[in-house]
Parts: sequence; structure tokens; C-alpha cells
Amino acid sequence: MRGTMLYGPRDVRFEEREDPKIIEPTDAIIRMVATCVCGSDLWPFRGVEKVSQPQPMGHEYVGIVEEIGSEVKNIKVGDFVVGSFVISDNTCEICQAGYQSRCVHGEFVSQTIGTQTDRARIPLADGTLVATPGMPDDDLIPSLLAASDVLGTGWFGAVAADVAPGKTVVVIGDGAVGLLAVLASKQLGAERIIAMSRHPKRQQLAREFGATDIITERGEAGVEKIKELTNGLGAHSVIEAVGTQESMLQAIRSTRPGGSVGYVGVSHDVNLDGQELFFSEVHLHGGPAPVRRFLPELIDLIWNRKINPGKVFDMELPLEQVAEGYRAMDERRAIKVLLRP
Amino acid sequence: MRGTMLYGPRDVRFEEREDPKIIEPTDAIIRMVATCVCGSDLWPFRGVEKVSQPQPMGHEYVGIVEEIGSEVKNIKVGDFVVGSFVISDNTCEICQAGYQSRCVHGEFVSQTIGTQTDRARIPLADGTLVATPGMPDDDLIPSLLAASDVLGTGWFGAVAADVAPGKTVVVIGDGAVGLLAVLASKQLGAERIIAMSRHPKRQQLAREFGATDIITERGEAGVEKIKELTNGLGAHSVIEAVGTQESMLQAIRSTRPGGSVGYVGVSHDVNLDGQELFFSEVHLHGGPAPVRRFLPELIDLIWNRKINPGKVFDMELPLEQVAEGYRAMDERRAIKVLLRP
Repeated sequence: MRGTMLYGPRDVRFEEREDPKIIEPTDAIIRMVATCVCGSDLWPFRGVEKVSQPQPMGHEYVGIVEEIGSEVKNIKVGDFVVGSFVISDNTCEICQAGYQSRCVHGEFVSQTIGTQTDRARIPLADGTLVATPGMPDDDLIPSLLAASDVLGTGWFGAVAADVAPGKTVVVIGDGAVGLLAVLASKQLGAERIIAMSRHPKRQQLAREFGATDIITERGEAGVEKIKELTNGLGAHSVIEAVGTQESMLQAIRSTRPGGSVGYVGVSHDVNLDGQELFFSEVHLHGGPAPVRRFLPELIDLIWNRKINPGKVFDMELPLEQVAEGYRAMDERRAIKVLLRP
Repeated sequence: MRGTMLYGPRDVRFEEREDPKIIEPTDAIIRMVATCVCGSDLWPFRGVEKVSQPQPMGHEYVGIVEEIGSEVKNIKVGDFVVGSFVISDNTCEICQAGYQSRCVHGEFVSQTIGTQTDRARIPLADGTLVATPGMPDDDLIPSLLAASDVLGTGWFGAVAADVAPGKTVVVIGDGAVGLLAVLASKQLGAERIIAMSRHPKRQQLAREFGATDIITERGEAGVEKIKELTNGLGAHSVIEAVGTQESMLQAIRSTRPGGSVGYVGVSHDVNLDGQELFFSEVHLHGGPAPVRRFLPELIDLIWNRKINPGKVFDMELPLEQVAEGYRAMDERRAIKVLLRP
């Protein structure tokens, strides 16, 4: 089969890779129907995360099950499945508490498996994959694919930020995760949703997803603007979907005392001063999203056409042109690129 | 009247101070029945927090109302009252959300007022003070005084750490706040309460308050020990009651993914690495405790003799010997020193 490998900064290659095989009795082999490029793939692509050897890429995927190991019970050959970007058994104490992204048998799909491929072996298939009620219409594919990471991550950001009816929510970051955090906040009943964005197309999508206000200022100026809009108090809930020092501080400083920051941007060079955090009196929660926790509910919302998160895909390419997909996202020509094998 | 002033490191003086007067119509003047020395008073006493000019000391207090301003409605002359260490109106949006320690009209008692005195002016009396149901028996005084800060702070630590029935809780710090966080965890239904302490007398009090296990190891060795006791997962809830880099890291690393750290030790030289925090996937919440939120419930528990937090006072001195109280706590000869005018 063919798959995507990153050899070094900006060196993405689509090349022949070994065919996946069942190794453990809990494995499944899936044939990709769609996969995509993630904002987090750009960190190693840009060289911010070092790549010491050629690395399989991709961790978002929907596909059809081709083969299962002898112990797989919930997933059948022929099922259309949505997977999470962290392998999980969904039975350990941590999974049962809703933190499948930190399953005791967990493994990141991006570091070892890579799903920007024709096919892939998914370990712990019963705990990682969720089958849709049937074969989806083609127009649902982008939304189901979004559920696999960016929607699940934006949703977790909103849950981690304690978004609830009546609250004022700020979303920092206008990538796919930030935009879908807007959608999640709307679904969770937020009264006011303030999206921070300078990009007209992303602003428009944020409004479609439920943003009531758009703010273009950043850093301290962005914080001031939020204070102006909230009687000087700050927002109840702030979702951080970038992962830099500036955006984390902006998130903490935009939150009122007793409010909550949900941070899902993969943290890079962030350092938090304990004293500032202490006196800010905010709740802080985040990390790699336990997408598996939310998948059944998200698939249901998509299946019944209550939400359309697939709109974040504004470019589609054949999988073999994956390198162009990375470039388009790196240059912010595309919000998110869908790839079809 | 006479009161306590800190002139510089280890220079505590009990001296003549101006009599308090009603300034605002929302003020009350109280005559102290008891006050005490707080662990947080030791930071400026030791010179870790710089003192640029002589500073009034003390922020824990119970007393009898002697005079009230024309707008005070809930508090009457003659009432026995317990106060919080942060002045609060208890009506603003932040107070109503339970964060009276960050009231929009908030003010720290320790920086401006100081209650290691005979008498004190308490601003925003209706929002800051809570009257007991009547004149308390003398043996209840230490417990009511504890409610004013260390019990309320330990309680907030437990609430911030999401302590609940069935959970395993770790308490880092064996000062009065840590010990009372043990008591709070017990009251909130924790199944297992692990106290970190090397001090035999404090270990014993921790056990009296409900600790089921005592661990003497610190830092990484302490973390390892917690992992051993929790199937390698870490505790559900960890209360940090010290405020140093070592204790914060110990708290975060002792917590399971999805678990919660409640930190109430005043943060000193703490710096948190964003990436470690991100992948730890813990909830982090803390800061100056909104004691006022808990005071009615805590007073009720004390009044009905359901809890006896006053046991943390293991030394009592006349107020004029306040300097000896600081020394006894600094040298860990006393857990907490009660002062009577």
C-alpha cells in the first residue's frame, strides 16, 4: 500500500509502505475512505517538533473494516468506522472515567501507525473505533472525519472550559479546532460566543457555527477587548486552541475568577508563572482530547444532520497529493484539507 | 489600641496603633476575642516576601461587634462574628459565583487592616462577616477561629480537588491548612486519605482528622509511593498546601489523568511547564480561598460539634507575645498559635 512519511522539515513523501497485517487478536485492518491533515501535523512539518527518522503521518480517519482479529467483538468486517487519534481499550479505569486519551494501554496513532494511507492496522479496535449505524451518504464523510479529531478536540475544549447555558465563551484560535469549539459551545448552550480571528473566511465560518462576536485583537489588546465586553470581569469559559505562550496567557487573562480555561492546542514552549495562576483563580483543564468519550454522541448528531462540522474542510485532494495539502495548510490557504485514497 | 506590625525579616513588634473608626457606612468595628498566626504570615516574616514599610499583620479573627456603620444590615452590635481574610461585598457577580476572594470590591485583610490587634475595622461588614447563632462556648473559639482561614482554605482545597465519596485523596503539606484539608476530605466523603508528613505530632493529628495512610517520602519518591498505592494510576484528588515548585510538581505528578489538583499553598517561585501540564491531563484549580462561601456551613458544623478543627492550635499565647508565636511556628515548634487579647 501507499502512505505518507515525513522525512524532515517540509519533506513530506507519499510512498510505498508495507501492507498492514493483523498482529494482535484485538487489531482491525481498515481501508481508508477519507483522511486529512491536522494542524498538529504542522508542528513537525515546520520543524518545530524535531523528526529524528522518517515518521508515518496522519491520525484522523474514517474507513471500512476489511479484517478483524479473533478477539474483536464490537466491530465487524464491512462496518464503516470512525476512529480516535489515540488507541484505547475503553475498559481500563482511566478510560471508564472518560480519559481514553490517557488509556493505560494507550498509543498515539500519529507516532507509530499513520493514517494518511490507503489502509491501516488499528490496535484495540473494539475500544478505539466506533461504527456508524450504516453506510453513510457521501456528504456525511467530511463531518464523520472531523469527529475523529478536530470536532472531538474542540468539543473537549468546550467541556474542559465548563461551557454551559447562559455563559459567555471565548475561543482563541481560528483553526479547525477553534472553529469547531465554537460549534461545540453553541451545542452546549453558550449564550455568547466570542471568536478571536483576523481571517475573513474563518470569521464567516465561526459565525455560521454560532459565534456572536468576532475580535481581531490579540495578546493584551485581545484581553482588554474581552474585558470591555464582559463588564470588566472576563469570560466564564475560554477555549485555547493554539498552544503558544501568548495564547495561553491570553486565555488565562481573559477568564474571570472562578471561570474555566479549556486548553487543547498542543502546548509548545509554554511556561506558566505559578503566582499569576494562583491569583487568577481560574480552572485549568485540557490536554489531548479523549475523543473516544464523545464519538457516539458526535456521530449521532452528524448522522441526524444536527451539526455540519465537515464545513471546516475547504480543500479536497487525492491522497497522493498529500504534500500539497500540508503546504496549503501551512500557508493558511486552506483551513483543513481532506484527502481521499 | 495595640496591634502587631512587621518591620522587616523576623522583626515583629506589638505596639500602640491608632484606634479603628467607622469610615464607610458599610464598616463594622469588632473587638477581637481571638486571632492567630498564619503559615502565610511566615513568608514575609522569613523575608521571602519583601516588606518595604512597617506592615500591619494578621487576617484571621473572631470577635464581638462593637459598632456598625449606618448601612450595615445583617450584622448587629453584640454579635459574635467570624470573618474571612478577604473583604467581600458578597453581592457582585464574582461573589455570587462563589469567588468572594476575588470580589470586585475585594481587599486583603492582611495588607491593610491586620487583625493581630485588640480591635479592627472590617469594611463591607455584611458581606465579610458571619454571625454565629449566639455567644459560643469558650471551647468552640479555636474552631471558629480556624474557620476564618485555615479550615476554609483546606476546605476549598478539597472542593477544588473535586474530593467526593469513593475517591482517593492525597494531601501535600502538614501545616494547619493541610491537616484541615484532611478533615475536609473526610467530611466530603473521601474513601482513602493519604497525608504526606514526616512530623509525628502532625501525623497523629492527620490520623485523628481522617487520614488512612501516612507517607513520609517527598518529591519524586513521594510520587512513586502514591503510584504504588493506586495501581500505578495516581490519586483522584490531590490537595497542594505548601506553595513551592517541588510540592506543585509532586501534586501534579501524583494525580491520575482526569484527576484534580486543588492548590491552596500561596504560590512562591512556581513555574509550570505547559507541555507537562498538557499531557498530565489533570484539572488544576486553586488560589486564595473564598472562605466566605463556606463560612455558614463550617460554622454550622462547628456549632453542632460535628468537627473540631480547633485542634490545630497547639499553642496559646497572650496577644502581646505575638512575636514568640511567629518564632514557634517558624521553628515548627507549634502547628498554629492562638492569640488572645
